Amino acid sequence: MSPVQFTPMGFLGFDATLENANTVVFGAPYDSTCSFRPGTRFGPSAMRRDFQGLESYSPYLDLDLTDYLIHDAGDMELPFGETPMVLDQIEAWATPLIEQDKQVVMLGGEHSLSLAMIRAFARKYADLQVIHIDAHTDLREEYLGNRYSHASVMKRAWEILGDGRIHQFGIRSGERDEFTFSREKLSITPFQLNGMRELAKELPSGTPVYVSLDLDVLDPSVFPGTGTPEPGGVTFHELLVGLMELKDLNIVGFDLMELSPHYDPSGASTAVACKLLREMLLAYQ
Amino acid sequence: MSPVQFTPMGFLGFDATLENANTVVFGAPYDSTCSFRPGTRFGPSAMRRDFQGLESYSPYLDLDLTDYLIHDAGDMELPFGETPMVLDQIEAWATPLIEQDKQVVMLGGEHSLSLAMIRAFARKYADLQVIHIDAHTDLREEYLGNRYSHASVMKRAWEILGDGRIHQFGIRSGERDEFTFSREKLSITPFQLNGMRELAKELPSGTPVYVSLDLDVLDPSVFPGTGTPEPGGVTFHELLVGLMELKDLNIVGFDLMELSPHYDPSGASTAVACKLLREMLLAYQ
Amino acid sequence: MSPVQFTPMGFLGFDATLENANTVVFGAPYDSTCSFRPGTRFGPSAMRRDFQGLESYSPYLDLDLTDYLIHDAGDMELPFGETPMVLDQIEAWATPLIEQDKQVVMLGGEHSLSLAMIRAFARKYADLQVIHIDAHTDLREEYLGNRYSHASVMKRAWEILGDGRIHQFGIRSGERDEFTFSREKLSITPFQLNGMRELAKELPSGTPVYVSLDLDVLDPSVFPGTGTPEPGGVTFHELLVGLMELKDLNIVGFDLMELSPHYDPSGASTAVACKLLREMLLAYQ
Amino acid sequence: MSPVQFTPMGFLGFDATLENANTVVFGAPYDSTCSFRPGTRFGPSAMRRDFQGLESYSPYLDLDLTDYLIHDAGDMELPFGETPMVLDQIEAWATPLIEQDKQVVMLGGEHSLSLAMIRAFARKYADLQVIHIDAHTDLREEYLGNRYSHASVMKRAWEILGDGRIHQFGIRSGERDEFTFSREKLSITPFQLNGMRELAKELPSGTPVYVSLDLDVLDPSVFPGTGTPEPGGVTFHELLVGLMELKDLNIVGFDLMELSPHYDPSGASTAVACKLLREMLLAYQ
Amino acid sequence: MSPVQFTPMGFLGFDATLENANTVVFGAPYDSTCSFRPGTRFGPSAMRRDFQGLESYSPYLDLDLTDYLIHDAGDMELPFGETPMVLDQIEAWATPLIEQDKQVVMLGGEHSLSLAMIRAFARKYADLQVIHIDAHTDLREEYLGNRYSHASVMKRAWEILGDGRIHQFGIRSGERDEFTFSREKLSITPFQLNGMRELAKELPSGTPVYVSLDLDVLDPSVFPGTGTPEPGGVTFHELLVGLMELKDLNIVGFDLMELSPHYDPSGASTAVACKLLREMLLAYQ
Amino acid sequence: MSPVQFTPMGFLGFDATLENANTVVFGAPYDSTCSFRPGTRFGPSAMRRDFQGLESYSPYLDLDLTDYLIHDAGDMELPFGETPMVLDQIEAWATPLIEQDKQVVMLGGEHSLSLAMIRAFARKYADLQVIHIDAHTDLREEYLGNRYSHASVMKRAWEILGDGRIHQFGIRSGERDEFTFSREKLSITPFQLNGMRELAKELPSGTPVYVSLDLDVLDPSVFPGTGTPEPGGVTFHELLVGLMELKDLNIVGFDLMELSPHYDPSGASTAVACKLLREMLLAYQ
Repeated sequence: MSPVQFTPMGFLGFDATLENANTVVFGAPYDSTCSFRPGTRFGPSAMRRDFQGLESYSPYLDLDLTDYLIHDAGDMELPFGETPMVLDQIEAWATPLIEQDKQVVMLGGEHSLSLAMIRAFARKYADLQVIHIDAHTDLREEYLGNRYSHASVMKRAWEILGDGRIHQFGIRSGERDEFTFSREKLSITPFQLNGMRELAKELPSGTPVYVSLDLDVLDPSVFPGTGTPEPGGVTFHELLVGLMELKDLNIVGFDLMELSPHYDPSGASTAVACKLLREMLLAYQ
Repeated sequence: MSPVQFTPMGFLGFDATLENANTVVFGAPYDSTCSFRPGTRFGPSAMRRDFQGLESYSPYLDLDLTDYLIHDAGDMELPFGETPMVLDQIEAWATPLIEQDKQVVMLGGEHSLSLAMIRAFARKYADLQVIHIDAHTDLREEYLGNRYSHASVMKRAWEILGDGRIHQFGIRSGERDEFTFSREKLSITPFQLNGMRELAKELPSGTPVYVSLDLDVLDPSVFPGTGTPEPGGVTFHELLVGLMELKDLNIVGFDLMELSPHYDPSGASTAVACKLLREMLLAYQ
Repeated sequence: MSPVQFTPMGFLGFDATLENANTVVFGAPYDSTCSFRPGTRFGPSAMRRDFQGLESYSPYLDLDLTDYLIHDAGDMELPFGETPMVLDQIEAWATPLIEQDKQVVMLGGEHSLSLAMIRAFARKYADLQVIHIDAHTDLREEYLGNRYSHASVMKRAWEILGDGRIHQFGIRSGERDEFTFSREKLSITPFQLNGMRELAKELPSGTPVYVSLDLDVLDPSVFPGTGTPEPGGVTFHELLVGLMELKDLNIVGFDLMELSPHYDPSGASTAVACKLLREMLLAYQ
Repeated sequence: MSPVQFTPMGFLGFDATLENANTVVFGAPYDSTCSFRPGTRFGPSAMRRDFQGLESYSPYLDLDLTDYLIHDAGDMELPFGETPMVLDQIEAWATPLIEQDKQVVMLGGEHSLSLAMIRAFARKYADLQVIHIDAHTDLREEYLGNRYSHASVMKRAWEILGDGRIHQFGIRSGERDEFTFSREKLSITPFQLNGMRELAKELPSGTPVYVSLDLDVLDPSVFPGTGTPEPGGVTFHELLVGLMELKDLNIVGFDLMELSPHYDPSGASTAVACKLLREMLLAYQ
Repeated sequence: MSPVQFTPMGFLGFDATLENANTVVFGAPYDSTCSFRPGTRFGPSAMRRDFQGLESYSPYLDLDLTDYLIHDAGDMELPFGETPMVLDQIEAWATPLIEQDKQVVMLGGEHSLSLAMIRAFARKYADLQVIHIDAHTDLREEYLGNRYSHASVMKRAWEILGDGRIHQFGIRSGERDEFTFSREKLSITPFQLNGMRELAKELPSGTPVYVSLDLDVLDPSVFPGTGTPEPGGVTFHELLVGLMELKDLNIVGFDLMELSPHYDPSGASTAVACKLLREMLLAYQ
Repeated sequence: MSPVQFTPMGFLGFDATLENANTVVFGAPYDSTCSFRPGTRFGPSAMRRDFQGLESYSPYLDLDLTDYLIHDAGDMELPFGETPMVLDQIEAWATPLIEQDKQVVMLGGEHSLSLAMIRAFARKYADLQVIHIDAHTDLREEYLGNRYSHASVMKRAWEILGDGRIHQFGIRSGERDEFTFSREKLSITPFQLNGMRELAKELPSGTPVYVSLDLDVLDPSVFPGTGTPEPGGVTFHELLVGLMELKDLNIVGFDLMELSPHYDPSGASTAVACKLLREMLLAYQ
């Protein structure tokens, strides 16, 4: 008779400690500024649960997660309804890890939280570049008086980083002014991910890059489990290819945001997020 | 051939204008501090949609809503993730209506918002009494650093009103300290609604009363559509009887909070909220 | 090795043929006049599926369905959107069975279809009495120009049967005029089922009785799977006791209407309908 | 502090009045003839709710809805289960608007209703052409005795318009006879939308065209929220491109039919319908 | 700024180690023999997730879980589709804990697994008594050739324990032969829980008792989240009172089985299971 | 008035008897070894229900099912939780049909059951070839001690058939060792279905072929209704084209496995399975 095994509870199944890890993954289950349909708070726990069933081996890359030092720090307990406090907490927690040159990976949660990560990385890297993959411009000045919602996250990031440092891909929704702003101050590739390879070549070697992936860049047929589905998005294959174009960059951190698993009872969206996490972890080591 | 009729869109179907109404109903679709499962933001719109199918006639009271002057102001657009700003907006909006001696009725939305209403009414009525019907004590000092979440709303109200002014009924969940606090500073009837009749008799005639109804006081079998179902609650009939015991009081305002319609695909919870709204509007005129 | 068994597909599992059966059960999956939320068309097939898992033995009555001659005729294919044609088809089909003194049992489907059964039975039995158990009065003259919707079914039945022949129980919703009409021309027991025993005693021995059971008479906590949930209904036990009070009457036919299974993902509503069908079949033989 | 804003309730957010509008949009929430799974009655209200969150700006066309005179008349209240009466009501309501040369746009609701629109337009335009985009032929003579169900709508339209006036695209399901009939009397492009550009060129300049879009032409991966999902359909991009090929035609009216939002809990189907409505409104002005 | 807290992942939040604990709780997520609707495998993880939000304080008992030594061993990984192997694994794992006089508590999972626990306890306690609270008799000799399914669990237990050692309460469904068997060889209280107090008095002081709670004894209105809902069950209050009648017995172990959380989207069933677990843990120490 | 028609209950609507049929279809509703999310047991009944609404005519092949002799034997009742017994029962039932040179088609149910069919066919055909279309390698030696789960089905088949007899297509998930094993002992086309045409040409004319189709080879956007969604799969069109490449082979039997309909509330997955069954039945005659 086989001895009983117990399910490792809650963690993604990575073996490294916080100390010896090269990469630290954490969950940020917060969705308070979501204006349409909340639920991204359930993203990290859904990913944890399903990631355990995912093979550690990638047939795309012929690499295996068991060969790397990755630590899962778990999910933060964040004070709902207090966005500025939440941003401060995440930034404060990530900062020492970044100081130790660890790659830090955030699982959202809503996209507004990427600001905390960008603030933390910008503190260390004066030349930080941000690759922003998303369906939405996220460049509103404010929304109903709130300057820190998901709709404004890249405007706030631009205020920190300045012109020419944020590169938007896949954008297919926004106000006319936001598109204009992006063309002038950031860079924008609407609808598609073309140009990632070119960008990767143009950036000076070793430039620190943060990749912020709002999963709603995917077409809702591929990724229905999100708060604001936007028809006309990219396919899984297009996104995977795009992300692989970046693999020779110095990716100091990245995030996967806006999985809202309850809107997709099939679990396919969570599976998409998990598989992308595996491929990004393997490719960006 | 009958002429085409169009569905009155969105409003509860009340005829009075804001000016001539005796009672003003509004929706407060906000749920950002919810720590477990969000969704009460969808409560007011669900009630609007289903209230149109509800008969205006109550066979319990033999009264008809068409005989009263009630105005539906619609749903507020509130900045998600900014609780203090939201409380201020609601208070500011309700205050002039209260000044005009209109009865003001809030449809939640999460329970934290009741604080805005209590602040607005307390400004006018120095002797305001609050009847708080709920499964939970809501008396935490703070939760993860947040002083304005649903878990603290009655603690904040007590800071304004002082001892002996808040009367809790139906409470069946909380920390040991919260129960102790309530017994000392408020008044508490755990598990049941007994004692409402006695309270109604004890209060001096004409005392202004605000009734704050967290619908999760109902057993989840009756009202599963809420964020934090608490087994062991009261039945629909017990709640209806309890609310009717208050009908001779001077009820200056009331709220129905914490309907989270998506957790109940049958729609029964929304029907419960609508029917209670009808009965309260008719009984508290 | 056990030989393979195959699931009997679709039928309720009764053995009798149409010819030798004393009781004939059929499904009427039609819901086109439903004004709020359709779905009762799925009631009969849901009952068929789950009835197969239900024990044939009733511990309430200490009787077993396998001891009786019951035939399941299956589900009709009815032309959606053509209510008068549907009523004619059901009436025409049931009439010869009634002529052969078979008990006929309809599984709904929407309540408007009960009119077809009442017309068929009234044709044979000049002294037919109808016991109508429901949350709603169903006594509207018409609804948006439609005289044959579920909201008018008992008004149409009254036009056929005349005063004093329809006995309403459990009613808790309707317009003021409908309540008045019922008190004058039918008989009405609002909210409760009390008085069934008395009615059973008052009716002359052998009087032919049709029992029309709109399952929404049950409280939505017990039976959420219906189009128009009405809080404040009776419990499963109260309904079972009420139905048993009628068991010495000459029940020539009956129906169970308004199961809309998709609104109750737990399947409890279908289980309620199946168990009531079993108990009624056993008690009314 | 920002002043409180209230959500505009129910309407699509267009500013024009019925009188000054060039385009009038209305909802027809009717699904009584649906033979498989009802629910398109919820299509218009779902579109209203989600259209408010959609940007008015189209990055595809670089046009903005705020620059046009569009009126939303709201949702009709239609008598369920009485299809001929419903068709008459819609035709009667649309006719005077068509007389005033307004573009009229119907949001379904089931496809059978397109007949009412085609009858109304054919009354004014003797040379009306219909472009029918659908997964299904919809050319049955009758279905279970019903001549006015969704399965027969184009057969009825053909009886009015005659040969060569209806152009079918995307068809991938039907009986052998229906395909034969379409090849002989209408025109049919199975599976794909190729040929729209050619058709647009062939039609004499200024020919009045009605576009009837059954959204189930889309692949169920893109548009699962419909009663009869048909695998093998077109992509969102293919449909968008196809619809744009028609933009120089004189489109006097159009419809978007068969959204059944409850079958798609992600909301992606409703988002698809809303975005197509935006693009069609902008392109067909 | 508050320091970041991380959610304790997966565990029920108890502090004791396996070594120093008086009570050991473990999950057995297995449902392979379920013949109707699977899903109890998700019961333990659902309880873990929601138990963290439950207050540790019981206002019923005025006791707090933080005052006791309880260990959560986590969820077993069991080989689906191999019931005998699963029973062996559970029995083997529990046996040494029982030897150390620890109270062992199993969270199901399907009811067939209770056999493993009963076997393990019977090995140590020759005078073991079993209190079986359930809607179903579970006394079939076999089902489709399978002797170890949930339908046979108490027949198998009886083979081990012999006559008069199993006490059934709340039973309302079974074949006629099963009821007869129970009356002769076990003891049975159909429909209700009356008699628990009497049983508790009759048992010799200190008799080791195992309580096997199939949660479907509750009415489906209270506990819809189970595979086989049986209308006509007991209320939450009745069950709580019944369980409290047993609190002076020597309860060496117990289980809570048959939570199938996905059938109850409200989460109320999981809340019921969690609250009963808290009360049983506190009462049976 | 049209006479009433009754829905043919349960069967797929084929007319042939078991005796005169060339093709026999049966359902195998078993999912006990499923380690992640059960529910394929509901696959066959969902396909039966929806297949009745599918047209018998294929516009792809211009063929009609009504022209062929096909028998539907119904759904087996299989003992859940006893996989070896289940495999034996299926094999024993299929063997005499295979002896009579009937094509046998299984509707799953979980993929582990394909082993029973392969065993039965291998008994008659020493040169049997298996075409295995799947997202997963299914080549584990065992899983938690279980050698007969879905994860091992092709390893068990290989033990029977030997090297070079199983051809895998579409594989995109597995452990590194499984990919290696397949490349050495089977044949594997990862990610895509390319090469089916070549395989069809290489096989000697008349070689008996069994096609085992795990529907999760499809991308989850097309087929979300399955237990283990794997992003990155093939489209409906790609699969249809691939299956058509095989149409000149001697396909002695085939299966469609792993439809788990409840995970796809839109019903699109069931529609995909039904349409593929129609096309395979027509193409493989």
